Amino acid sequence: MTVIDLNSDVGESFGNWSMGDDAAIFRSVSSANVACGFHAGDPSVMAQTCRDAVAAGVTVGAHVAYRDLAGFGRRFLDCSPQELADDVLYQMGALEAMARSVGTEIKYVKPHGALYNTIVHHEVHAQAVVDAVKAFGGDLPLLLLPGSVALKKAEQAGLRAVAEAFADRGYTPEGTLVSRREEGAVLHDSAEVTERMIRLAEEGTLTAVDGSTVRIQAESICLHGDTPGSAAMAADVRTGLERAGVKIRSFA
Amino acid sequence: MTVIDLNSDVGESFGNWSMGDDAAIFRSVSSANVACGFHAGDPSVMAQTCRDAVAAGVTVGAHVAYRDLAGFGRRFLDCSPQELADDVLYQMGALEAMARSVGTEIKYVKPHGALYNTIVHHEVHAQAVVDAVKAFGGDLPLLLLPGSVALKKAEQAGLRAVAEAFADRGYTPEGTLVSRREEGAVLHDSAEVTERMIRLAEEGTLTAVDGSTVRIQAESICLHGDTPGSAAMAADVRTGLERAGVKIRSFA
Amino acid sequence: MTVIDLNSDVGESFGNWSMGDDAAIFRSVSSANVACGFHAGDPSVMAQTCRDAVAAGVTVGAHVAYRDLAGFGRRFLDCSPQELADDVLYQMGALEAMARSVGTEIKYVKPHGALYNTIVHHEVHAQAVVDAVKAFGGDLPLLLLPGSVALKKAEQAGLRAVAEAFADRGYTPEGTLVSRREEGAVLHDSAEVTERMIRLAEEGTLTAVDGSTVRIQAESICLHGDTPGSAAMAADVRTGLERAGVKIRSFA
Amino acid sequence: MTVIDLNSDVGESFGNWSMGDDAAIFRSVSSANVACGFHAGDPSVMAQTCRDAVAAGVTVGAHVAYRDLAGFGRRFLDCSPQELADDVLYQMGALEAMARSVGTEIKYVKPHGALYNTIVHHEVHAQAVVDAVKAFGGDLPLLLLPGSVALKKAEQAGLRAVAEAFADRGYTPEGTLVSRREEGAVLHDSAEVTERMIRLAEEGTLTAVDGSTVRIQAESICLHGDTPGSAAMAADVRTGLERAGVKIRSFA
Repeated sequence: MTVIDLNSDVGESFGNWSMGDDAAIFRSVSSANVACGFHAGDPSVMAQTCRDAVAAGVTVGAHVAYRDLAGFGRRFLDCSPQELADDVLYQMGALEAMARSVGTEIKYVKPHGALYNTIVHHEVHAQAVVDAVKAFGGDLPLLLLPGSVALKKAEQAGLRAVAEAFADRGYTPEGTLVSRREEGAVLHDSAEVTERMIRLAEEGTLTAVDGSTVRIQAESICLHGDTPGSAAMAADVRTGLERAGVKIRSFA
Repeated sequence: MTVIDLNSDVGESFGNWSMGDDAAIFRSVSSANVACGFHAGDPSVMAQTCRDAVAAGVTVGAHVAYRDLAGFGRRFLDCSPQELADDVLYQMGALEAMARSVGTEIKYVKPHGALYNTIVHHEVHAQAVVDAVKAFGGDLPLLLLPGSVALKKAEQAGLRAVAEAFADRGYTPEGTLVSRREEGAVLHDSAEVTERMIRLAEEGTLTAVDGSTVRIQAESICLHGDTPGSAAMAADVRTGLERAGVKIRSFA
Repeated sequence: MTVIDLNSDVGESFGNWSMGDDAAIFRSVSSANVACGFHAGDPSVMAQTCRDAVAAGVTVGAHVAYRDLAGFGRRFLDCSPQELADDVLYQMGALEAMARSVGTEIKYVKPHGALYNTIVHHEVHAQAVVDAVKAFGGDLPLLLLPGSVALKKAEQAGLRAVAEAFADRGYTPEGTLVSRREEGAVLHDSAEVTERMIRLAEEGTLTAVDGSTVRIQAESICLHGDTPGSAAMAADVRTGLERAGVKIRSFA
Repeated sequence: MTVIDLNSDVGESFGNWSMGDDAAIFRSVSSANVACGFHAGDPSVMAQTCRDAVAAGVTVGAHVAYRDLAGFGRRFLDCSPQELADDVLYQMGALEAMARSVGTEIKYVKPHGALYNTIVHHEVHAQAVVDAVKAFGGDLPLLLLPGSVALKKAEQAGLRAVAEAFADRGYTPEGTLVSRREEGAVLHDSAEVTERMIRLAEEGTLTAVDGSTVRIQAESICLHGDTPGSAAMAADVRTGLERAGVKIRSFA
């Protein structure tokens, strides 16, 4: 039987500011990337998000980030590897306490935003993230971009590295994401996206931006819930996959 | 055999700013109140402080505080009980991850600064702190002021509440601290302080500011390391207690 | 001719988080309370908000707050008067630079949230806010609750203290706001609110919650834009006032 | 008559954390780079530092930085040019209010730490800093590294760009700083440093690390006050320059 994970970012509200339609997303995904307070999320948001994850039967992962609330973790911060490792470990511990207090625990780690993108190529920061996950104990899997340096380093450290695909993104014939500056970078048609994800789950392939078929290694599909229509698309993808007989289950 | 704990605040540096003589304090105390990032301490300071505690054989406690870096946690913040409980739990989890990464774990909780003083009388905030400690799991003991509301609430919740005395503070005949606005509030003579602490450990009494004898319930003595001469006084108290045959051992 | 000011909070977004419908509010008000970064607003939001105010011909005021981003400035913070005065002055200066860079300047100061409510009765914090406004220079007017301690202190310091009414709030026969815990605290009917504000502008009176007539001293009316329907109500109040021949003009 | 400026960083304390010996530095320098709250300094520290500068007859400059308190502004932050320009303008305005409240005003701008180093080569961030200074009004001079991209951009924008030398640093034959990873990067001998600075002031030359003579364009000399012995060295340099007949005067 074909199985795939659906993941999405949640818990990105902060204080008086709301973000995203977490309630809708929790109905669609199997894995929730929960913000840990460094780019978004405050302790009360984190506790509530873990509670909602438990209620929805969704697996909790730590969505760790550079320390940059003003920039939502979307700006590269040239911290030292020790600072980064300690920052990541701090975030994991904080979320773990929240998760345990509601009867669950963090089951994986996904770097957020600029950190996610940086460790595709930045050896030192990639290693720092891996070091933090090792230091946390329990050898949690890392959710990463296929082909990233971090993925290799995670595997070298004996961690499971789980590659993900992006439901609403176009792919090059080489299997990388089409740059947001180019046409075909973002897909808006829910039916098309759903078809692509069914094929990805069943065959491990996608149609690239040039029409060719490209093989994509992915155990998880990343969905969005913070833009207009995205939560609806997430729901469509889930429904479509289930109708096609694909089982939605967290990789963790 | 007479046994007492000596505790002190450590890990209060932040980023590029240093505070206190932690190396000296670690030679004197049995319990270290480690700042968790909300009033002081950053993830790297926390990790290093836990490492130093392990090296010194000192027990680690979470020094939890209101979210107030600019005020060093010394200003009352009228947060909701839910916010406070979540903030405390977040801090505990973050420090726990740091502690575990170096082979130890947090063994107790001590509220810091304005939070410590507030929950002497503030029922709602006292309960929130107790709720956080319960939510963390493991029923860690709380280190508190004798007679505080928080102490009562901790015991009602089935937690161990450990009362502490302050080595360098004068006491009223009623067993409360002499207000800092009055004479005799702070003691500066190291020999006198040491004598007082030996008597406290052995007999459970102190000479109050009016010369009378007052009974003080305390399983721990709080020492300071952040003012000139305080680390030296801490060392004197420890040496004096040991010479008098008092064993220094963490309560936790 | 009858003249009144309409004011509202704007610029309360922060980083990636949006709040309020500022574009709609700018069409309705004559005075904009612009957040200064301590409870909401970041430098880019502040600059853009000032730009929008200039484009809309709306007067800019500094919406100063306790340093509490996580609590949106809605939690009392027991800072020292010196800290508070310096924090307020810092916020005013920061916003002034933003305002000047787009061709305007701050014309008044309105304390936000917990600070606004605290200085209704807290003598020391009220004086600190007044001291900051004096220290800034130019003797800017302060926008405050009628009857507040801060209002009296502002006048004693030679500042103009402008009292405001709340469009969507019920009033007691004594002229104070009906507590949010009681019935009649918040009004939801746009037509009723408009009628009340026309009468307030023309006669200086309102119908209190018990049906009696109460005199309200107010040179400005506070409108909201951050809840569903509030921006629409703000537009209705403005249109209603103008149709009744009331001129909308900033007090500053 | 030979004239030179001496500048140093001050006001780098934050909340309960002290840094540097500002009192000593104020006796040695003619220009004070005052932290503005983004890497160090809080509003009360800023106000007090401006007061001390006025008392010492020292010119106040805005020491602007990336928004990074945890990293003391020493870490590159990949913010957008708009964010950076707005952040810099915010800091300038905040310090200006503090300065004006004690009878002075900011007379120049010096980027701090990672920002200072980044705009030696980073065109976009260099331009953003220049844009902020232009937006502030008054065309304040910028204190920068000789040869930096920012210096050129400042001049293109019609701003005065003032180059500085570092008293305690070695120079290459090309006139650049010897890398801290190499020998001769930092000079520790106070007498030698003083001799070098006298020659720099009088002749505009220094002995490079290889013994050759190198011409250094500098209207200001940067001194340090935050490391052991640095405040004493600053005092020696000032005394030595004055004895040699060099007048110490701010460039601004």
